[in-house]
Amino acid sequence: MPEVERFDAVDLIRAKRDRGRLDSDQIAWLVEAYTRGYVADEQMSALAMAILLNGMDAAEIRDLTLAMVASGERLDFAGLGKTTSDKHSTGGVGDKITLPLAPLVASFGVAVPQLSGRGLGHTGGTLDKLESIPGWRAQLSSGEFHRQLAEVGAVVCAASADLAPADRKLYALRDATGTVESIPLIASSIMSKKIAEGTASLVLDVKFGSGAFMRDAERARELAETMVRLGHDAGVATRALLTDMNVPLGLAIGNANEVRESVEVLAGGGPADVVELTVALAREMLDLAGLPDADPAAALADGRAMDAWRAMIQAQGGDPDAALPVARESHTVLAEADGVLAEQDALAFGIAAWRLGAGRARKEDPVVHAAGIDLHAKPGDEVSAGSPLFTLRADDAARFERALEALDGAVRIAPAGTELPPRPLVAARIA
Amino acid sequence: MPEVERFDAVDLIRAKRDRGRLDSDQIAWLVEAYTRGYVADEQMSALAMAILLNGMDAAEIRDLTLAMVASGERLDFAGLGKTTSDKHSTGGVGDKITLPLAPLVASFGVAVPQLSGRGLGHTGGTLDKLESIPGWRAQLSSGEFHRQLAEVGAVVCAASADLAPADRKLYALRDATGTVESIPLIASSIMSKKIAEGTASLVLDVKFGSGAFMRDAERARELAETMVRLGHDAGVATRALLTDMNVPLGLAIGNANEVRESVEVLAGGGPADVVELTVALAREMLDLAGLPDADPAAALADGRAMDAWRAMIQAQGGDPDAALPVARESHTVLAEADGVLAEQDALAFGIAAWRLGAGRARKEDPVVHAAGIDLHAKPGDEVSAGSPLFTLRADDAARFERALEALDGAVRIAPAGTELPPRPLVAARIA
Repeated sequence: MPEVERFDAVDLIRAKRDRGRLDSDQIAWLVEAYTRGYVADEQMSALAMAILLNGMDAAEIRDLTLAMVASGERLDFAGLGKTTSDKHSTGGVGDKITLPLAPLVASFGVAVPQLSGRGLGHTGGTLDKLESIPGWRAQLSSGEFHRQLAEVGAVVCAASADLAPADRKLYALRDATGTVESIPLIASSIMSKKIAEGTASLVLDVKFGSGAFMRDAERARELAETMVRLGHDAGVATRALLTDMNVPLGLAIGNANEVRESVEVLAGGGPADVVELTVALAREMLDLAGLPDADPAAALADGRAMDAWRAMIQAQGGDPDAALPVARESHTVLAEADGVLAEQDALAFGIAAWRLGAGRARKEDPVVHAAGIDLHAKPGDEVSAGSPLFTLRADDAARFERALEALDGAVRIAPAGTELPPRPLVAARIA
Repeated sequence: MPEVERFDAVDLIRAKRDRGRLDSDQIAWLVEAYTRGYVADEQMSALAMAILLNGMDAAEIRDLTLAMVASGERLDFAGLGKTTSDKHSTGGVGDKITLPLAPLVASFGVAVPQLSGRGLGHTGGTLDKLESIPGWRAQLSSGEFHRQLAEVGAVVCAASADLAPADRKLYALRDATGTVESIPLIASSIMSKKIAEGTASLVLDVKFGSGAFMRDAERARELAETMVRLGHDAGVATRALLTDMNVPLGLAIGNANEVRESVEVLAGGGPADVVELTVALAREMLDLAGLPDADPAAALADGRAMDAWRAMIQAQGGDPDAALPVARESHTVLAEADGVLAEQDALAFGIAAWRLGAGRARKEDPVVHAAGIDLHAKPGDEVSAGSPLFTLRADDAARFERALEALDGAVRIAPAGTELPPRPLVAARIA
């Protein structure tokens, strides 16, 4: 129990409001008192706004993160007999990388305890995607979770409410109060969950660009550096890749179609960018897990990753051979001119897929697993007038109109032969 | 009823967070939706913090004020047959001016509809002071209020919950969330209540200095100018005096002792500073009420103001001749050296009186009417070693220790003959 009257919440809010700093004891007290309800939501939201506008230094961010870890249980895989490694993405459009990546890394004998969330807004959620698979369930008991980690190696499931409950409460509050876009609050939210999750190592996929949470590469780098430092401070070996999210990842945006694309990658095929990012992240995870010479591309090619995928899906009740849902209606947009596809705006495609039903507007809404968008060309591809650019899929054709509105101006075709500026998918690596 | 989904509260919070401005429709919607509970406390507190840190322009402050007026009823004295004038003080130590001022102005046939509050923290509340008088009651029905205004002219009573309910709700929230010290929020809070109160004219006593809400004279001037403009915009003839609150007003700090001092002023005596400020504010009120030649000093000297006081107290059940409560214990502090009293810190005396029981720490606490401090000398007075400086009064001698702690260093005695810098009580007038 916190000493209820040890500090006065109003004094601490005023300190941050007036550009002061909070010390470890003050932050620990605030987070525990908030978790237990002695500090009210309206006080925490005023503080969150003051943090967003006035910032926090590195020590404050570390104290906030560790206080949120301490608000709940911290998992421990000491008895597992193998090392653990996890990946976290800050979210993007068409970002299904967890699906091939977790079984790929597990196929090398590394345990991947991936506690995931659902999508809100224009970026999808890994659990929503996997729930396209008939029978698959996201909720595991603690016993099931540990057993699957030991036997299969890869687990993608919903986080228990006991992990970083302070973050869970604060995250919902920030969403309702316009206090999401703060590096100290984002970094501490992500890292408190990952540290509580107990992974020994962690690779962060921090995205920048139109479809990312951070549009600006410099802000994304600051977030990545902040999180890597937090990981190190908490004893989690942490690295980050800074990756481009101006264009959707792969050719599929949605839920069931992203599972399909992931299975293609696991079968040794799939779009080049999805393969590139999956392999790059796998290399980092395997290196941190003590396997610097492991060859993830080979494990995709020879079926080892696919075997791990099938075991992972089956362990959670899913049928890896079952047919995935298909949308009743589709609408294909054709190129109006010959040329080279120069731009394909990730945010516009994310919003369009969301409006088709692939995402949810409110936490309690269901998603439509079959809804989404299939791209037929990517930037750099030659297109000709009348060739298909992309296909919208939904159960209700009435949804196409607002999806197409979001896509207005999202695709640009340049004259054939135009040289596009190079745009590396992995822009930087932060260790 | 507001159109619930006309705006999204999060969008409006983000706009202010990002240094944008809110338009009239957005502010009107926010205030009405907040009053009715469609916008949550945690959203309003995040917005209040964003306003505190990023400010509001003049049009936004006006829109916020008028929206808070519109959240409840607005009184109307059109049928009263005389003009109305009111005074509001931003609060200070020993500030009992309303007590002599309201009957003084009423003695000239001007109605003074003074809706007052209770004290919280180190500044006293007018209702707390008047409740020292046996039988006097602060709660009046609407009928009683209007009848007393017509018959007696002066009414000092508690505001109805129907006046500016949005302000009432927001004020309590700001107190708990460290969002009090914002000129847009302070100005709109004070002026929404005064505009809703329906007074035709208003004189503001905006204090600066150690015992005031605004320590800095420039910030106090900005607040005064903001409020005068708000009054003009709402059709209330408004002026402000900027007055010094580095030193307590008068010789009495507390509740019953402040009533005693007020009665001395009404009897033609009393401390010079209390008389000076009472007369200065009365002149402004009478001038705005169309009586530029009225002589308030004469009405104090000849007993007209006292007659109005007695009628005002009796109309609310009080006995103007009853003995006021007296504290059981007292402790007098003596001068340690000969010299001239150079400093007497208002904040320290305010906190000391509060700790003696004259004020309350929480809204639901009672005040001790007999508790307080009597000053025996004021800055500029000659003192000699062993002469009394001030007397603490409380019902429990155990309270003296913490009160004396607050007073440590609060009084400074300079060598005899030291010239003190002039410190005018009324520093500026803003029309």
